[in-house]
Amino acid sequence: MQTRTEKDTIGEIQVPADRFWGAQTQRSLENFKIGEEKIPLEVVYAFVHLKKAAAIVNGSLKGLEKEKVDAITYAADQILDGQHDDHFPLVVWQTGSGTQSNMNVNEVIAYIANQWLTENGHDLKVHPNDDVNRSQSSNDTFPTAMHVATVIYVEQHLLPAVKTFTETLAEKEKAFENVIKIGRTHLQDATPLTFGQEISGWKRMLEKCKVMIEQSTDHVRELAIGGTAVGTGLNAPPEFSEQVSAQISKQTGATFKSAANKFHALTSHDELVHLHSALKALAADAFKIANDIRLLASGPRCGIGEVIIPANEPGSSIMPGKVNPTQSEALTMVATQVFGNDASVGFAASQGHFQLNVFKPVIIFNVLQSLRLLSDGLVNFNDKCLVGLEPDEEKMTQYLNDSLMLVTALNPHIGYENAAKIAKKAHAERTTLKEAAISSGLLTEEEFEAAVRPEDMIHPK
Amino acid sequence: MQTRTEKDTIGEIQVPADRFWGAQTQRSLENFKIGEEKIPLEVVYAFVHLKKAAAIVNGSLKGLEKEKVDAITYAADQILDGQHDDHFPLVVWQTGSGTQSNMNVNEVIAYIANQWLTENGHDLKVHPNDDVNRSQSSNDTFPTAMHVATVIYVEQHLLPAVKTFTETLAEKEKAFENVIKIGRTHLQDATPLTFGQEISGWKRMLEKCKVMIEQSTDHVRELAIGGTAVGTGLNAPPEFSEQVSAQISKQTGATFKSAANKFHALTSHDELVHLHSALKALAADAFKIANDIRLLASGPRCGIGEVIIPANEPGSSIMPGKVNPTQSEALTMVATQVFGNDASVGFAASQGHFQLNVFKPVIIFNVLQSLRLLSDGLVNFNDKCLVGLEPDEEKMTQYLNDSLMLVTALNPHIGYENAAKIAKKAHAERTTLKEAAISSGLLTEEEFEAAVRPEDMIHPK
Amino acid sequence: MQTRTEKDTIGEIQVPADRFWGAQTQRSLENFKIGEEKIPLEVVYAFVHLKKAAAIVNGSLKGLEKEKVDAITYAADQILDGQHDDHFPLVVWQTGSGTQSNMNVNEVIAYIANQWLTENGHDLKVHPNDDVNRSQSSNDTFPTAMHVATVIYVEQHLLPAVKTFTETLAEKEKAFENVIKIGRTHLQDATPLTFGQEISGWKRMLEKCKVMIEQSTDHVRELAIGGTAVGTGLNAPPEFSEQVSAQISKQTGATFKSAANKFHALTSHDELVHLHSALKALAADAFKIANDIRLLASGPRCGIGEVIIPANEPGSSIMPGKVNPTQSEALTMVATQVFGNDASVGFAASQGHFQLNVFKPVIIFNVLQSLRLLSDGLVNFNDKCLVGLEPDEEKMTQYLNDSLMLVTALNPHIGYENAAKIAKKAHAERTTLKEAAISSGLLTEEEFEAAVRPEDMIHPK
Amino acid sequence: MQTRTEKDTIGEIQVPADRFWGAQTQRSLENFKIGEEKIPLEVVYAFVHLKKAAAIVNGSLKGLEKEKVDAITYAADQILDGQHDDHFPLVVWQTGSGTQSNMNVNEVIAYIANQWLTENGHDLKVHPNDDVNRSQSSNDTFPTAMHVATVIYVEQHLLPAVKTFTETLAEKEKAFENVIKIGRTHLQDATPLTFGQEISGWKRMLEKCKVMIEQSTDHVRELAIGGTAVGTGLNAPPEFSEQVSAQISKQTGATFKSAANKFHALTSHDELVHLHSALKALAADAFKIANDIRLLASGPRCGIGEVIIPANEPGSSIMPGKVNPTQSEALTMVATQVFGNDASVGFAASQGHFQLNVFKPVIIFNVLQSLRLLSDGLVNFNDKCLVGLEPDEEKMTQYLNDSLMLVTALNPHIGYENAAKIAKKAHAERTTLKEAAISSGLLTEEEFEAAVRPEDMIHPK
Repeated sequence: MQTRTEKDTIGEIQVPADRFWGAQTQRSLENFKIGEEKIPLEVVYAFVHLKKAAAIVNGSLKGLEKEKVDAITYAADQILDGQHDDHFPLVVWQTGSGTQSNMNVNEVIAYIANQWLTENGHDLKVHPNDDVNRSQSSNDTFPTAMHVATVIYVEQHLLPAVKTFTETLAEKEKAFENVIKIGRTHLQDATPLTFGQEISGWKRMLEKCKVMIEQSTDHVRELAIGGTAVGTGLNAPPEFSEQVSAQISKQTGATFKSAANKFHALTSHDELVHLHSALKALAADAFKIANDIRLLASGPRCGIGEVIIPANEPGSSIMPGKVNPTQSEALTMVATQVFGNDASVGFAASQGHFQLNVFKPVIIFNVLQSLRLLSDGLVNFNDKCLVGLEPDEEKMTQYLNDSLMLVTALNPHIGYENAAKIAKKAHAERTTLKEAAISSGLLTEEEFEAAVRPEDMIHPK
Repeated sequence: MQTRTEKDTIGEIQVPADRFWGAQTQRSLENFKIGEEKIPLEVVYAFVHLKKAAAIVNGSLKGLEKEKVDAITYAADQILDGQHDDHFPLVVWQTGSGTQSNMNVNEVIAYIANQWLTENGHDLKVHPNDDVNRSQSSNDTFPTAMHVATVIYVEQHLLPAVKTFTETLAEKEKAFENVIKIGRTHLQDATPLTFGQEISGWKRMLEKCKVMIEQSTDHVRELAIGGTAVGTGLNAPPEFSEQVSAQISKQTGATFKSAANKFHALTSHDELVHLHSALKALAADAFKIANDIRLLASGPRCGIGEVIIPANEPGSSIMPGKVNPTQSEALTMVATQVFGNDASVGFAASQGHFQLNVFKPVIIFNVLQSLRLLSDGLVNFNDKCLVGLEPDEEKMTQYLNDSLMLVTALNPHIGYENAAKIAKKAHAERTTLKEAAISSGLLTEEEFEAAVRPEDMIHPK
Repeated sequence: MQTRTEKDTIGEIQVPADRFWGAQTQRSLENFKIGEEKIPLEVVYAFVHLKKAAAIVNGSLKGLEKEKVDAITYAADQILDGQHDDHFPLVVWQTGSGTQSNMNVNEVIAYIANQWLTENGHDLKVHPNDDVNRSQSSNDTFPTAMHVATVIYVEQHLLPAVKTFTETLAEKEKAFENVIKIGRTHLQDATPLTFGQEISGWKRMLEKCKVMIEQSTDHVRELAIGGTAVGTGLNAPPEFSEQVSAQISKQTGATFKSAANKFHALTSHDELVHLHSALKALAADAFKIANDIRLLASGPRCGIGEVIIPANEPGSSIMPGKVNPTQSEALTMVATQVFGNDASVGFAASQGHFQLNVFKPVIIFNVLQSLRLLSDGLVNFNDKCLVGLEPDEEKMTQYLNDSLMLVTALNPHIGYENAAKIAKKAHAERTTLKEAAISSGLLTEEEFEAAVRPEDMIHPK
Repeated sequence: MQTRTEKDTIGEIQVPADRFWGAQTQRSLENFKIGEEKIPLEVVYAFVHLKKAAAIVNGSLKGLEKEKVDAITYAADQILDGQHDDHFPLVVWQTGSGTQSNMNVNEVIAYIANQWLTENGHDLKVHPNDDVNRSQSSNDTFPTAMHVATVIYVEQHLLPAVKTFTETLAEKEKAFENVIKIGRTHLQDATPLTFGQEISGWKRMLEKCKVMIEQSTDHVRELAIGGTAVGTGLNAPPEFSEQVSAQISKQTGATFKSAANKFHALTSHDELVHLHSALKALAADAFKIANDIRLLASGPRCGIGEVIIPANEPGSSIMPGKVNPTQSEALTMVATQVFGNDASVGFAASQGHFQLNVFKPVIIFNVLQSLRLLSDGLVNFNDKCLVGLEPDEEKMTQYLNDSLMLVTALNPHIGYENAAKIAKKAHAERTTLKEAAISSGLLTEEEFEAAVRPEDMIHPK
């Protein structure tokens, strides 16, 4: 492998000749051979947005030369265009401030910027620290990138996924608003409701989670930038934080603002704990919905079998109607992962020391994994299962007729004791209520049908 | 033990003669001999508020006789006055809908109401189910009581505790706004900040958590009441839910409203998951603050020793100055418990089946334990540690003088290379920067003092 | 309230006159008004066993006077007899080393011992520190008490509960070894097995957990005693640790030994983490068993309804056959709590600093809560549900006949394609396989019955 | 993109022409576009070992043609040689039984085997289901692969990493057995110990974890193979399970055996829960060790600064001696991740239904991630930090002299009250004990030095 020599204050080091990174990135690669989990590209891109914004603001506030600003902007745009993803190789399990990822971004931007400056006939050289990192520190840039990456992911992926899922549920709620079925509590037969009502409960979960996610995300819009190394802002101009935040908002289309207190911003991640818990609430609801659906679809002969889900893959080569609820399985596994991630995020957030929390990479790794899994998981479940979900109305009606719970509707007509007697008879003889009622001689079939009307049992009155 | 005979649909059962509860409570006691954790009294009181409100509303909407309303109101007020706490003996590990606690409340209220009716010469009898539980089901009353108990606890205990803690921090921030000390990142010496600034970061944590708790609590103000057994509201009048919610608000002084979707309200506990996570965020912050304080107070001779905490108990009988950070230990243990509770709550919330989640008692048990521990823990830490916390300014100044990080202030005066040389010299010879600077001949003492001014390094510029 | 004056190195303090504790206990009561969770009595008793053993060993190794040994022994036996439980009032949320609980025990033992000495005409006075705590420190006694309490609870409660549960399963396995039923994977109908086989899988879970618990418990038999304040054993005689461990073994009937490395014993709780995880494995299995049972018992008309569980309380006043699976609900809630406790224990164990982990009270609180809940939960579930659990053989047979999965048995007789054709026909026409087979003309009823024999499908071949 | 047509019972589907997989793999790819986490290659390889073993056993027990056995063996060896890793593209978030990964392996093996058969002039065709999957089901093969992959990873990576780490600690313990330093409890100065003793406590943690891991791993050696679809073993020969287990042992060099109860093996993952918890215990200990080291290395001027760790990357360009404890940060982040994974694994294990737990992929994903992170993390920390860790003996001695805790050594010489007086004087005047002792006139310097001998305070006596 061809290499070139790079150096930092520790000394020289060999870097692969075709890589844009410098000494500190290379050193991190060699010092942290742990696992396979890389710093997510979303964090890299958020960093690049920040570096571009900082260059522009440094141009006006700290005299960064126009050519350098242009060069950094050029480099940033190239990276954001997805052309250089391979130059960000660092793993999550590095320094806990993310310093090395900050330096990775500084080094790659400087490299590309310098190529551009040379190609455009400029003599200036962009320096990773002095220029790209000007007015900044790893300690304020990494948490800034965490927040920017998170808010963008929520807005571009999670909330649209929640919306799609909610809309499908709204359609199903409407479509099945008149399909009456048995209710179940404690897994035992209960009074009836419509399938639309059942679905409305699921829909409400998504609606609730949407609001909780939005509220929690708003706290994440505050950026640490401007705090520099310990939160005092030493070496950054006073206006830096607000201007960079505004510039990032402009670049990304998402709203950000300067954090009110930078000491907090470097050392506490309470906002991400809280946001992740909204993800956990969503995961809990998604688990419940997916679980209900597989229970309702259980069978085809020896389960509940009230709903039919799409057969996306062979369930059994010989047995028709065996449709494994694989989408429910995938989504509940996603939820399970989110629960674990939630534990990691909370624990990590509690472990800051003095002016810095050094569990930043593991926090953002888990936050973004949860965001991605939930976004993908909801869309996938929606497309491959929910859209095609249908009630087996024949089965629903059969259960309704079989159930003994409708006996309560007889009370006003024949009194509690007679009603109970009919129920007991039906239970003992394994017949329907109607059969028991008629054979008891207490009601005719017409009287029974006039009295026991499930459609009157599905709302207050 | 004297007993009396009570009965339910299963048959007769002996109840201790001096207990107000009935057959179903007694049966639960015998069927669930598990653990020592009782349904929290806060839940019982919330139930009683609900029963009183329901009686009043049933009086106007469902023809509950005025005497019965008065009797139930009397019983409720007696219980809320704390006179009958011993009559609610059920454990958390019962039916997952909390049915038996609902019945416990119904039975005790009916018992007291009937004593009152008899004493006041009425012939009527209040029936636990037909009267006290009228228009209700365990499935909507228990989640209602969960929400009422939670909101009241947050408003009456947690938020005041957060406020007190925040105010103390604000006072300390102000008091020490001019005390300059060394900053620390990665546990390594960094650039300076004021002790007031450090405290402001802690204060901001509390402020953030306050808002997150308030926003999360607002979701909990929605009540399930009116949903009855499966969410349809069967057997409840249409106006019941809104009127009862309004009446509970009036009785408690806290704001509640009818949940927009009752199917959700019975089967999802996403709001409590989200609220509990705000508690987890608070616990993570509290852990960090308490941990910082014990590290800062470490010593007295062989640690950091920058702050002095109150000596509440003997640390060592012979060694003066050994003050164990016991308040930090208690508060970090509380946080540890809250983390575990958070896992239980999230898991439980995911396990609903169809129209009902039957993990309600374990959810509310954990939510209230976390609320209590955090409320008590913050107040206790505030009173016994934070109020008395003082900087050891002599030590802080010594560190500031010893630190080599201030060397950066020499750059503009003697250039980077000379500055680095002085730092290296001081490090090698284990002297202060000032001593190294003077002995290097590069600056006089006066020049050094003019150049190295920590007070200029604590803000942007 | 009558008080008496006690004092420690901090000064005087008023103690309720009728309480046996001294200044340090009283101070802890006043300094830690947090929550309601008390140090478990099991820990107190373990402490008392330790104090008695230490007195005996101090008698021979450190010249503790015989009268004092007798007095301490007397006091210890009185406490272990349950006569003085009210004198141990401290909460979990105290100093993280449990110092105050150690002092509580020292103070109460000294108090009782001194009463006894006086009554028996001795002039000597037992001192809480110099005598009861001789050769000891809080730092080695508290972890010793944690281990002693844990091992005793496992041996006296948890393992017997596991045994009982396993035996019931063994009986059921035997009783239903010939009851053939449909299998279910992915909640979909699968090939058959016997109900006995299904139960054998549950039984194996308990057997596995038993071994895992026993192996994990063996690590907990190592005691910290003899390490004193930092693990060096300063102020303890060299033989102290082994002799005290042997003496505790003798007193309790459980096996203990001196920990091989006392520095580890004070600062790591890896053994309790590992033991608690065996509890988590048991909780996961218990959750699965309880959940399977409630699903199998779901119905009575609109669920799976394959098994019948005891009706311990009214499910519905009017609907016969509605038996809420309340025991499953209680046991799954217990499992949920154990999961949360597991998170707390692991987190707490990671937070030791230098020579001491100061999360001891929260660790043992959670370990003992899990032990108690699982022990009680298993016994209760066994007695109130498992013993009475019966298959609904009629329903099982009906499912077996209804299922299309048995079609595979036709392959060798009529070929795969014809078999598949019959299954498809049965599915489309909602008939049984047998009906479809006969009406297809491919087999007679006799041929079908000869070919499709579930009893041949339940073992390898 | 070139494609070829493949088909399964659902119909035709296009597969990239250069991929060896078939219809079911392709279908999974299209049905599960969720996240980026792939089924770990370790699981694929374990599967391939199983398929090879099964082919050999099917050759003798079920008449699989010798040419097919040879072809499958050839294909398996090619894959195990790492030549076809790209042909296993499936994500974790698929069907919860791992069916699709089983089919992926079946399809790729069949493809390679068929190429080989053709190249070697055979007419036979290996069929993915009928041949490669003969006598098997996804439901028994996937858990078998989980266990095989886990045991191999533990033996080949984790235990060697633990061994290396332990050996380094043993060397350090020996090297510093005479370096006396101050002890610390509650982060407060305590009595002395040697640095070797401190390290011995860490070493003991690793030793304990090693045994716990080994014991837990033994439970994982039991294989589900032979259980087929529901645990009964239908369609597998009776000897299949034992012979395949023996064959896998032979191939891998690790010990495996047939699980005693196959119903358990398909539906419970208690062994992996328990093993993962041994990983959690290790993570908790690793966290504590890494945390202690960074606290001991804190400074260089304003922290504890007792140990020196290698400077692997620039800490500060200008400040010498600032060495960020980045290896501690990486290892504590790893531990944090393991804690979260532990929650996921336990939760997933509790969620089996009837004859199958369908959370298998998420369980093995987390188990293997934890194994990899801990193995890599321990080795990396060992190589980049532990090996180079040195005490700053000058600082340790200074602390020892500064500390007031040694005052206890004066008791026997001048009495408790005089000793306390000296300590108090030293504390008030901020002098050393020795200075205070001499200036008090109670002891001469020689007497002090004869009396206060830290080397006598580091063991029982």
